[in-house]
Amino acid sequence: MIQKKIMTKNISTGQKKLVADWHALMRTFIQPEDDAARNTLLKYMEQILFGLHEFLSHNVGFTEAIPLKELGRRFTETRLSETPEKKLADVITDLVEDIAPYAVNVASPYFVGHMTSAIPFFMVHLKTIVSALNQNVVKLETSKVVSVIEKQLQAKIHRLIFQKTPEFYREHVQNPETTLGVFIEDGTLANITALWVARNKLLAPKAGFAGVEAEGVPSAFRAYGIDRLVVLVSALHHYSIKKAVGVLGIGNENVIALDLDNNNRIDLPALENQIQQLQSEKGTKILAVIGIAGATETGTVDPLRKMAGICSRNNIHFHVDAAWGGPTLMSDKYRHILDGIELADSVIIDGHKQFYMPMTCGMAYFRDPHHMDAVRYHSNYVIRRGSADLGIKSLAGSREAVSLVLDSALKIMGTRGYALLIEHGIETAREFAQEITSRNLFQLVTPPELNILTYRICPAPLAEKLAAAEKEQRHEINESLNHINIAVQRMQREAGKSFVSRTTLTKGARNGERIVVLRSVIMNPMTTIEILRQILDEQEKIFYSVFKNYDI
Amino acid sequence: MIQKKIMTKNISTGQKKLVADWHALMRTFIQPEDDAARNTLLKYMEQILFGLHEFLSHNVGFTEAIPLKELGRRFTETRLSETPEKKLADVITDLVEDIAPYAVNVASPYFVGHMTSAIPFFMVHLKTIVSALNQNVVKLETSKVVSVIEKQLQAKIHRLIFQKTPEFYREHVQNPETTLGVFIEDGTLANITALWVARNKLLAPKAGFAGVEAEGVPSAFRAYGIDRLVVLVSALHHYSIKKAVGVLGIGNENVIALDLDNNNRIDLPALENQIQQLQSEKGTKILAVIGIAGATETGTVDPLRKMAGICSRNNIHFHVDAAWGGPTLMSDKYRHILDGIELADSVIIDGHKQFYMPMTCGMAYFRDPHHMDAVRYHSNYVIRRGSADLGIKSLAGSREAVSLVLDSALKIMGTRGYALLIEHGIETAREFAQEITSRNLFQLVTPPELNILTYRICPAPLAEKLAAAEKEQRHEINESLNHINIAVQRMQREAGKSFVSRTTLTKGARNGERIVVLRSVIMNPMTTIEILRQILDEQEKIFYSVFKNYDI
Repeated sequence: MIQKKIMTKNISTGQKKLVADWHALMRTFIQPEDDAARNTLLKYMEQILFGLHEFLSHNVGFTEAIPLKELGRRFTETRLSETPEKKLADVITDLVEDIAPYAVNVASPYFVGHMTSAIPFFMVHLKTIVSALNQNVVKLETSKVVSVIEKQLQAKIHRLIFQKTPEFYREHVQNPETTLGVFIEDGTLANITALWVARNKLLAPKAGFAGVEAEGVPSAFRAYGIDRLVVLVSALHHYSIKKAVGVLGIGNENVIALDLDNNNRIDLPALENQIQQLQSEKGTKILAVIGIAGATETGTVDPLRKMAGICSRNNIHFHVDAAWGGPTLMSDKYRHILDGIELADSVIIDGHKQFYMPMTCGMAYFRDPHHMDAVRYHSNYVIRRGSADLGIKSLAGSREAVSLVLDSALKIMGTRGYALLIEHGIETAREFAQEITSRNLFQLVTPPELNILTYRICPAPLAEKLAAAEKEQRHEINESLNHINIAVQRMQREAGKSFVSRTTLTKGARNGERIVVLRSVIMNPMTTIEILRQILDEQEKIFYSVFKNYDI
Repeated sequence: MIQKKIMTKNISTGQKKLVADWHALMRTFIQPEDDAARNTLLKYMEQILFGLHEFLSHNVGFTEAIPLKELGRRFTETRLSETPEKKLADVITDLVEDIAPYAVNVASPYFVGHMTSAIPFFMVHLKTIVSALNQNVVKLETSKVVSVIEKQLQAKIHRLIFQKTPEFYREHVQNPETTLGVFIEDGTLANITALWVARNKLLAPKAGFAGVEAEGVPSAFRAYGIDRLVVLVSALHHYSIKKAVGVLGIGNENVIALDLDNNNRIDLPALENQIQQLQSEKGTKILAVIGIAGATETGTVDPLRKMAGICSRNNIHFHVDAAWGGPTLMSDKYRHILDGIELADSVIIDGHKQFYMPMTCGMAYFRDPHHMDAVRYHSNYVIRRGSADLGIKSLAGSREAVSLVLDSALKIMGTRGYALLIEHGIETAREFAQEITSRNLFQLVTPPELNILTYRICPAPLAEKLAAAEKEQRHEINESLNHINIAVQRMQREAGKSFVSRTTLTKGARNGERIVVLRSVIMNPMTTIEILRQILDEQEKIFYSVFKNYDI
C-alpha cells in the first residue's frame, strides 16, 4: 500500500537514462527490476549461500595472476556517473565474474600466510541477516534486543576469560551501569580502547584536576608530577601498540620493546629490571605492561601469570593482546597456554580471527566492570545520562550488530566445535614443524606454540657454514639466505597456487641477526599436512630451479 | 577432493552431542546439515534477499512492545555452551522469529527519529558478496583488486567533494605514495582520524623534535612553545568531536563551542573574535576550526565558504563534519548548500547515512594527498615500506571491504538516483514544516535546511503566554512544555507505531533557554507527507488524552 502511494509520485528529471524518474528508482530500491534480474541474483546468491567454498574456489583468484600495476590501470576513472552505469544484475555479475577473480581466495587451504582463512558458510547467512536488520548498536532506539544480546554475549566472553563467580555475572550481565566489554571494528582499535581506558584511569580526575580526558596529557603530567609515560611489551608486539600510544598523545617512542627469551616470550628478568629502573627515574610512570597471547609473527604466548604477578606487585595496568590467541581458551586441551590471562586488567580478542567470523569484529574486555567509566560520553539526543545505550562507553559511535553473528555462531558450534578447529590448527602446525625439520633444505626458526610457525630455506651447505661462522661471516650468510627466501616467497605467491607470508625477525634466539623467515598460519580446517607438504615441495622446486647455479 | 580427504579424518571427542566429531563439524562448516536445514535457510534467505521491506515489516518489531527490563531478564545466561545449543537451521529460525520481533524496524517509513532508515534491498546482496569474499583491506595480500577499487572509489568521492583537476586525479587515483582518503568504522572514528592528522601536521617533526606522534603531546607543546591546543566548532557539534580531542590527548575541555546565529549556524563574528582573542593569548594554538554540514540535531549547515576564508587567512586546519550532509553534493539542486566544502582540509562522510549503506561505513578525505603521511605506520609482515597496502595510513588495522558495497551502489543508482532520494528528503521535510506550522498544537523550532527539522508541542494558550512572558515566567512555561514533549514522545514510542526522537536545544535563537524538541529525520523514500501527518495526528491524540486536564 505504501509502495503504491509512492509509485504515483513522480519527480521527473527530464532524462531518458536508466534511472529516469522516481518510479524506476523505487523499483530498484525495493526489488529486482524484472524476472531476468531476479534470476541472475538468485543464481549467484544461491551459489554463495549454499556452496560458498566451491564458489570461492571456482570464482576467486589467488594472487599474482595479473600484476598490480596492470590491474591499477583498469581502475582509473574518477568521475562518478550521474546516470546508473549498469543494471543491478549486471553490477552483481561483474562483481562475481570480473572482480572476484582478482580478489584473493583467502579461503583456499593453500593460503596459509595470514590470519584470514575460510569461514563456515553459515557466517555469511548470519551476516546477511544482520545487514537486513540494519540495527545500529550505538543506542537502544535503533537496536533494542540486539543491545541486550550483545551485553549477554560480552558477559559470556568475559566469563570465558576472567572466570569470575556466577554472582558477579548475575549482577553485571544486564546492568546498564557497568560494562564488561565493547565491540569495535578491529584489534587495533580494541588495543587503542584498552590503553585509552588505562590512560584515563591512571591520570584520573582528582582535586584541582579534571582528568586527562578533559584537560589533556600535558596538564595531566603536571597534575601528577610526571614527564613521561611508558608502555612495556615484548619486541614481538603488534604494530597497533605503537599506533595506540601515538594516537593517545603519549608518544610512540615510549613503547619500550623488551628482549625475548629463547622461546620468543618476553624476557621476565629484563621486564623486572626495566620496571625497577623506570620506577627509580623521577617523573616516569608506567602506563601498562602488555602481554601477548599469540604474537602476530610467531604465534608465541608470553608468560601471562608471571607477568600478572609482576604487574600486581608494582600496581601496573596489565593488558593482554589476545587478538589471535584468545579463542584458545575454548580448548580444554590447550587453554593452559594462556594460563594467567584471567588476572589481566584488560584483554582484546578479534572475532574475525579464531572465532572464524567474516571481517571484522574487534573486542576489548575489562576485568573491572567500572573501568570503562573512564571513557564515558553523553549527548542530548542519544546516549543520554542514565540510558542503557551501549554507545556511552565506546571509541566508535555507530556500529553494526556483529555481536549477533558471534552469538549465533557460538550457539551453532559450541565451544567444543571451536576447540576442534583450534586443536586441528595447533596439531597440524606441529606436524608441519616436524616435516620442515625432516627436510634438508629447510630450517625451523620458531616452532609453533599455537598454530603459527616460521621457517626458512637454508640449504645444508649454508647451514653448516653458518654453524661454524664468526659474527661477520654469519651476517653475510644470513643476508644471502634472506635474499633467497624473499625471492622464493615472491615466486611462489606469483605462481598463484599457494601462499605463505614472510616477515623479518631480529630478536630472541637470533642475537640481533636480521633474519627473513617464511610464516605459516594454520587455521583453515581444510589445510592438511598433505597440503603443507605440497607447499614445501613447491618451494624446493622453485629454489632448485632458480638457485641451482647459486654459489652456496 | 580436499573435502573428501577431510572426511576421512576423525578427531574423536568421545561425546555424543550435536558436534561429536570432526566429520559433523566439517559438514556444518561447509554446508547445511541436511535438506530440511537447507530448506529452512533457503526460505529465510529468499525472504530477506528478495522481499526485504516486506520481510522487515512483517518480522521486525518496532519499539516498546516489551519493556527493556523484561527483555533483559530473558538474556542472563552467561556460560558459553560447550556443545552446540541448537542446529544451524534452528538458530536461524530463532533469529528471524524470536529475536527480530524485538529488534527495531528502522526501515519503517514511520521511523523518522534517527539517521538510520530503509536501505535498498540490493545493499544486502552486496554485503553478502563482501562477506563471502571476506577480503581484508589492510593489505594487498588479502584483498588485491579490492584495494585497487577502494582507491579508485576514494578518488571519485574526493572529486565529488574537492573538484580538483582531471590531472590531479590521474596522478593520484592509483598512486601508492599518496592518499586521498580512508575508510573506517564510522563517523566518530573518521573525525578522530581527521583531527589526528591535523594534530600531527601542526606538531610535526622539526629540528630537535621527532614529532607529536613519536614524542607525545607534552614534548610537542615544549617544542612549539605552546601550552594549549583548541578546536573551534559550533554548539551543534557531534559529541564525537569532544571524544576525538579527548582521545588525542589534547583535552576535551579545549573544544570551544561557539554560539549560533539565528539560523543555527556558527556565528561568524563570534568565530572571528574568538580566533583573534586566542591568537593574542601566548601559548594557545588553534588545532582546527570545524564546520558542520548537516548538524545531527537540526540538519543545519555552517557557512562553509566563509569559514574556509577565515581559516585560510589565519592558517588554520579547516575540517568539515559532513557525516550527514556530504551526499547532498550529488544533488545539482541542493549542492549549493554545501558551497565551500571544496576548500576544507579534511571532510568526513558516513556511508551508512545518506549513501543508504547498511551499518557501517565511515570515511575521511583530505584535500592534500600528502596529509595522511603524518599518520604512517609500518611493520615487518604487512604494510611494509614501499608497499601499496592501504593499512599504512589508517587508524584501524583489519577492515571489511565495504568500499565494494558503495562502489557498486553508486554504479547501480548513479549520482542522480541518490540525488532523487536526497531531494525527496529535503522537499518532504519542507512540506512537513508547513504542516507543523499550520497546526495549532505545534511549533516549528528549527526549519529544515536539509532533511532534518525539530518542532515541539506548544498549545496555543501556552504559545501566547510565552510570547508575552518575562524571562522567569518564560523559563517556567518552557519547563512545562519540556515535560509535555518528553511524555508524548515516550508514549508514542511505546505505542510502537511510529518514532520521532527528541533532543534538547539551548543555543541559537533560544537565548540559552533549555528546550526539549521532537526531531524528525526524513530520509526514507517511503516516508510521505501523509505518513508524517499521521504521526502528528497521533501526537495530538496522545496529548489531548493525557493532558486534557493539564492546567495550561
